[in-house]
Amino acid sequence: MFLAAGVSGRDMNKPGKPLLAESMGIIAATIYMVATMIFLPIQFYQSIVKEPTTSISETHTFPYDKLGQYLSALLSLQSMVFLGFADDVLNLKWRFKLFLPTIASIPLLIVYYLSHGVTHVIVPVQMRSVFGQSLDLGPLYYVYMGMMAVFCTNAINILAGVNGVEVGQSLVISMTVAVYNLMRINSDNPDTAYCHLFSLYLILPFMAVSAALFYWNSFPAVVFIGDTYCYFAGMTFAVVGILGHFSKTLLLFFLPQIFNFVYSCPQLFRLVPCPRHRLPQFVPSLSPHTQPSSASNVGGSSDHDAEAEECLQSDADSSHTVTPLRRTDGILEPSWADLSGASATGLLIIRIFAWLGLVHTKYDERANLVGYTNLTLLNLILVKLGPMSERRLVWYTLGIQALGSLLALFIRHNLATLIYEDTYK
Amino acid sequence: MFLAAGVSGRDMNKPGKPLLAESMGIIAATIYMVATMIFLPIQFYQSIVKEPTTSISETHTFPYDKLGQYLSALLSLQSMVFLGFADDVLNLKWRFKLFLPTIASIPLLIVYYLSHGVTHVIVPVQMRSVFGQSLDLGPLYYVYMGMMAVFCTNAINILAGVNGVEVGQSLVISMTVAVYNLMRINSDNPDTAYCHLFSLYLILPFMAVSAALFYWNSFPAVVFIGDTYCYFAGMTFAVVGILGHFSKTLLLFFLPQIFNFVYSCPQLFRLVPCPRHRLPQFVPSLSPHTQPSSASNVGGSSDHDAEAEECLQSDADSSHTVTPLRRTDGILEPSWADLSGASATGLLIIRIFAWLGLVHTKYDERANLVGYTNLTLLNLILVKLGPMSERRLVWYTLGIQALGSLLALFIRHNLATLIYEDTYK
Repeated sequence: MFLAAGVSGRDMNKPGKPLLAESMGIIAATIYMVATMIFLPIQFYQSIVKEPTTSISETHTFPYDKLGQYLSALLSLQSMVFLGFADDVLNLKWRFKLFLPTIASIPLLIVYYLSHGVTHVIVPVQMRSVFGQSLDLGPLYYVYMGMMAVFCTNAINILAGVNGVEVGQSLVISMTVAVYNLMRINSDNPDTAYCHLFSLYLILPFMAVSAALFYWNSFPAVVFIGDTYCYFAGMTFAVVGILGHFSKTLLLFFLPQIFNFVYSCPQLFRLVPCPRHRLPQFVPSLSPHTQPSSASNVGGSSDHDAEAEECLQSDADSSHTVTPLRRTDGILEPSWADLSGASATGLLIIRIFAWLGLVHTKYDERANLVGYTNLTLLNLILVKLGPMSERRLVWYTLGIQALGSLLALFIRHNLATLIYEDTYK
Repeated sequence: MFLAAGVSGRDMNKPGKPLLAESMGIIAATIYMVATMIFLPIQFYQSIVKEPTTSISETHTFPYDKLGQYLSALLSLQSMVFLGFADDVLNLKWRFKLFLPTIASIPLLIVYYLSHGVTHVIVPVQMRSVFGQSLDLGPLYYVYMGMMAVFCTNAINILAGVNGVEVGQSLVISMTVAVYNLMRINSDNPDTAYCHLFSLYLILPFMAVSAALFYWNSFPAVVFIGDTYCYFAGMTFAVVGILGHFSKTLLLFFLPQIFNFVYSCPQLFRLVPCPRHRLPQFVPSLSPHTQPSSASNVGGSSDHDAEAEECLQSDADSSHTVTPLRRTDGILEPSWADLSGASATGLLIIRIFAWLGLVHTKYDERANLVGYTNLTLLNLILVKLGPMSERRLVWYTLGIQALGSLLALFIRHNLATLIYEDTYK
């Protein structure tokens, strides 16, 4: 159905670049919305049957505030899923991608405000002489929360490019959130306990649909997830972070994403030339079951393309015979960016990164710096550990994510008194 | 952007069948969602500033029930818009189109239940000896309301096919709803008054975005609206009908749609053969600015297609010269359905309809009944009033809709005591 509608994309890291159905996140998101809506009457069943339907005076025994919280969460989520799918189909402009998520956060922020959400941050002890014990950010805090959705969405969208890595990282983050919720759900404060129960209501079905999607999207991918899934996942995290009153803790669960963002900054802000695609490069010559190429392909993008086209041809020829997908375990190398036209600042940054061992560099015959490996976490793993299969790269990345989560939970529970405090009063 | 993404369709009733952008209802729906979300803090502004943010004990001064009502309305709407757009892009199967709107109605029904919605209908006086004064439908009433969304959506979707008729009828219905709300908003019962205020909150922005869309979609259409708009409009009406507690009155505003449905039944339920497209037939030979054809086109569908293809050709040739759109005011005739293979029942139905003057029929040389005009309101207008331009056909249809609305308001306010009663206790 998706292929027929032209909602599809090519898997660049496979021999023959097969055409896969795109935007499969819409299925996951739809199932999620159906499940959470069906859970709506179940969640409030006790309150509903207790509620007398004939007397108006006792209306307030029903927990309308909790209903509003749940509805606003679903509304913001549904809006983002809609936006994500529209983006997949229509390729929205950037201004819409920044403006519309902010609008979609309005219901969340209203409900956060009504639930007496705090707007102050605890100042780390080292800085208390300057700012005092806590700093009330007031409206700025709402701006910060309004940007959570944009941050979470793009954090996941930016660490992408190989099969299953977007869904995998979301799965790890959601598990971390669930563990954190379970650790806190027995809090003596009933409001805190409810916050974490509420978060579980939303994160458990998310884990379920993500696991199913991961099955289809992990190496070798049978489907792509599209921006729809990134929007959906990002907003789910933003929703539980904001309405669960642990938005600052949530950021700790995004350590690899934050590192990836900081590492990418020179490219994102165009301090150094940035190619359109930065995903690791598939090297057919190093992969089993493809003919070895005579020329070295490292950095030779035109060579590589020509060879890929050949593969495409041969794949099209053999498309009638069903070949087991698992066979094509291609080898990935870091992809390269060209440094021609780079500013002096740009060259300096790359030299520093090279000195720190964070990039590989390439020199021409006159010893000019002409190329460097793209600044993404995936390329960095390949720089540090050498070329590897796509499957292994994904598992390394998810391993890093899991280690990051353990570190985050450790920080939150052992160093928390330094920086954090319960945000729910 | 939409044309580039392949979200487009051909206008069959114009010379050359130009390609227009489809699904433009998504723009209207997105603007609507943005407007209603921005209205969220405005609507509750007084309650929010009154609400003390430090004391939990006074939480219940905030009208959480109204917030829940508004949020559930937006959630159901957003879900249907999402579904509509997915349908436009992916051509969903029928089982999803019936199943998913029902799920999307859950938030509405929960909130309706909580607002002490009645589930009984007043029995008309003539039948009170049998059923008593009122009949409590209980859960059946919720099934009825759950089907409102499906009914409203399809009621609009089915009276379609010429430029602007879907948006135009929705515009007329929404104006009728607004007038009805204004007539009732000064009710002595504050709950009734709030219901109609709530309905206005949702129907006024709907009127605004529909008017804008009508400007672009009315003859000669520059864009198409797609299923997205029909889902969006249908759900808007269902939402205001259910949460405004006037779902039965709302049905009165759909008189032309209900007539169209009943009139179409023999075709919809396949009692008589039904062609895939039933929209009125464009006759180039009767239209100005196209060469008259030598053969008569009435009922000659293959002739017509051939000619349309010629037009397509000539239009493609002349596509470099920008021709003013307003010139091509083509003439429409009723479209014909083939009766070969019809059952005896089918033939009888068509004979009865012909005897009532509701269809034109066609006989072969041996006096066998072989064709009839398709059973839609648009074709019926053409049968009764003769061939006319597309522009005029739309205005006649909208005139009928407006007359239906006047009749409905008259019935509601003068004959209501016979059948209706305030549904809000």
